[in-house]
Amino acid sequence: MSAAPLAAPRRCLVDLEVRYAETDQMGVVHHANYLVWFELARTRLCAEAGLHYAEIERAGYYMMVTEAEVSYRRGARYGDRVGVTTWLAELGSRFTSFGYEIHRDGQLLATGRTRHVWVRAEDSRPCRLPAMARSCFERLAGASS
Amino acid sequence: MSAAPLAAPRRCLVDLEVRYAETDQMGVVHHANYLVWFELARTRLCAEAGLHYAEIERAGYYMMVTEAEVSYRRGARYGDRVGVTTWLAELGSRFTSFGYEIHRDGQLLATGRTRHVWVRAEDSRPCRLPAMARSCFERLAGASS
Amino acid sequence: MSAAPLAAPRRCLVDLEVRYAETDQMGVVHHANYLVWFELARTRLCAEAGLHYAEIERAGYYMMVTEAEVSYRRGARYGDRVGVTTWLAELGSRFTSFGYEIHRDGQLLATGRTRHVWVRAEDSRPCRLPAMARSCFERLAGASS
Amino acid sequence: MSAAPLAAPRRCLVDLEVRYAETDQMGVVHHANYLVWFELARTRLCAEAGLHYAEIERAGYYMMVTEAEVSYRRGARYGDRVGVTTWLAELGSRFTSFGYEIHRDGQLLATGRTRHVWVRAEDSRPCRLPAMARSCFERLAGASS
Repeated sequence: MSAAPLAAPRRCLVDLEVRYAETDQMGVVHHANYLVWFELARTRLCAEAGLHYAEIERAGYYMMVTEAEVSYRRGARYGDRVGVTTWLAELGSRFTSFGYEIHRDGQLLATGRTRHVWVRAEDSRPCRLPAMARSCFERLAGASS
Repeated sequence: MSAAPLAAPRRCLVDLEVRYAETDQMGVVHHANYLVWFELARTRLCAEAGLHYAEIERAGYYMMVTEAEVSYRRGARYGDRVGVTTWLAELGSRFTSFGYEIHRDGQLLATGRTRHVWVRAEDSRPCRLPAMARSCFERLAGASS
Repeated sequence: MSAAPLAAPRRCLVDLEVRYAETDQMGVVHHANYLVWFELARTRLCAEAGLHYAEIERAGYYMMVTEAEVSYRRGARYGDRVGVTTWLAELGSRFTSFGYEIHRDGQLLATGRTRHVWVRAEDSRPCRLPAMARSCFERLAGASS
Repeated sequence: MSAAPLAAPRRCLVDLEVRYAETDQMGVVHHANYLVWFELARTRLCAEAGLHYAEIERAGYYMMVTEAEVSYRRGARYGDRVGVTTWLAELGSRFTSFGYEIHRDGQLLATGRTRHVWVRAEDSRPCRLPAMARSCFERLAGASS
């Protein structure tokens, strides 16, 4: 399963305030939280393209995570504001992937990627991109609108 | 809604290893995690009395938290093993409460209490202690078995 | 240790988007996350009164949580935006407490309170309200500015 | 930076009980928690080889995560017990990587890898494998003991 990377996908930038609870005893944000930030940015990206992920679930579909990877360069700290940028990186008929970058004051803190398959809630089986999500994902892919 | 405190409820002690991700930049376990530990101990207590909480949910009921309180005395640290003790503190027809104590090497770290109402999943409405959970909760209450 | 409740403390309202990771299998925000939201609102309240909590720690002090309580009325859901209001509820020489309310579309979801003591980082001992935090806390208390 | 994969590294299996708070509204464990489980298994692996990671930090070193990847096959559920296996996958002079597998009843749920660099706490700069950790990591690598 692979698909050509998208040339000019729509991007979304979410501005976040680091939460105290997100830090660990090393004094920086615990590395698992970057996946939570990615997810928040993914939600915002879809919402900005016209479809809140909550509606996708209400329609009986999940976009289940099958792979996640994060590359960490610098730690985010309590008191920081960070920007999480996300975009659709691949759009297949049965899977999608998203790319991510996290910045603070122009410095790159981390990059990442997640991969997802579409799953029908009723039988937990993989399925194709649901019709109700098609126009949103076309907009994310950067198709002429 | 109140009920007489129970005289000799069944107790359960769960032994936990502090996770790195549970610490914050103060170098101790973040205070919100104590509620997660309470919940884990509650699960174990019910399981030991014959009913896993997952079965309660599969039967269509929730034991929804309506109140939680924690009193913190000493911080738990990464590398510590802590013991979480829990017991049924009140058993009403529509609600229950549990008490908790957390120790490390004989020192009391925290105490707490949570209160719950029974809710039917199908309509999200409060209900009475489900019949399928009755014998478990009688055992928790310390009734002669 | 008690202090008269404050008559007209400064208030701060934080607008939050529920994160998917904050939900649990009951379909609502897991109850431990409310403490994380309270903490975020506390940070914002202090920052708006002129002192980021990160500066307090850099100056060598902690505002350690000694008690927390939450009363849950309705669950917050993924896709919701919620407002967390906080204010200084008590100001003692050695401790402080904060009050909290969480709303969604005018409906009260939860209320809470946390209590804190001042601790010197160097020896982990309780101390008085640090001089560097005094004017901030007077503003929080609603003293004429 | 790369190193030959290790032929017969020491392995550690940690048995975990899924926590309710670890689930999300999809009814399975939220994907970010797998990184927390990996970390717990890493701690146990090092402890079994004679060195608790807390001692490494007390000696003034961090094993900072620089990369993490997870591949998810099946979801873990509340009520499940899962086994997390970990091993040292690469041992360089300045970095290390660990491999992970998560199973439930003989079924593979997920695999993963994390990469770490050694950092001196005093100046936050990368450093070589600290002398105090050498014998532990040789045991992890499977050197004849």
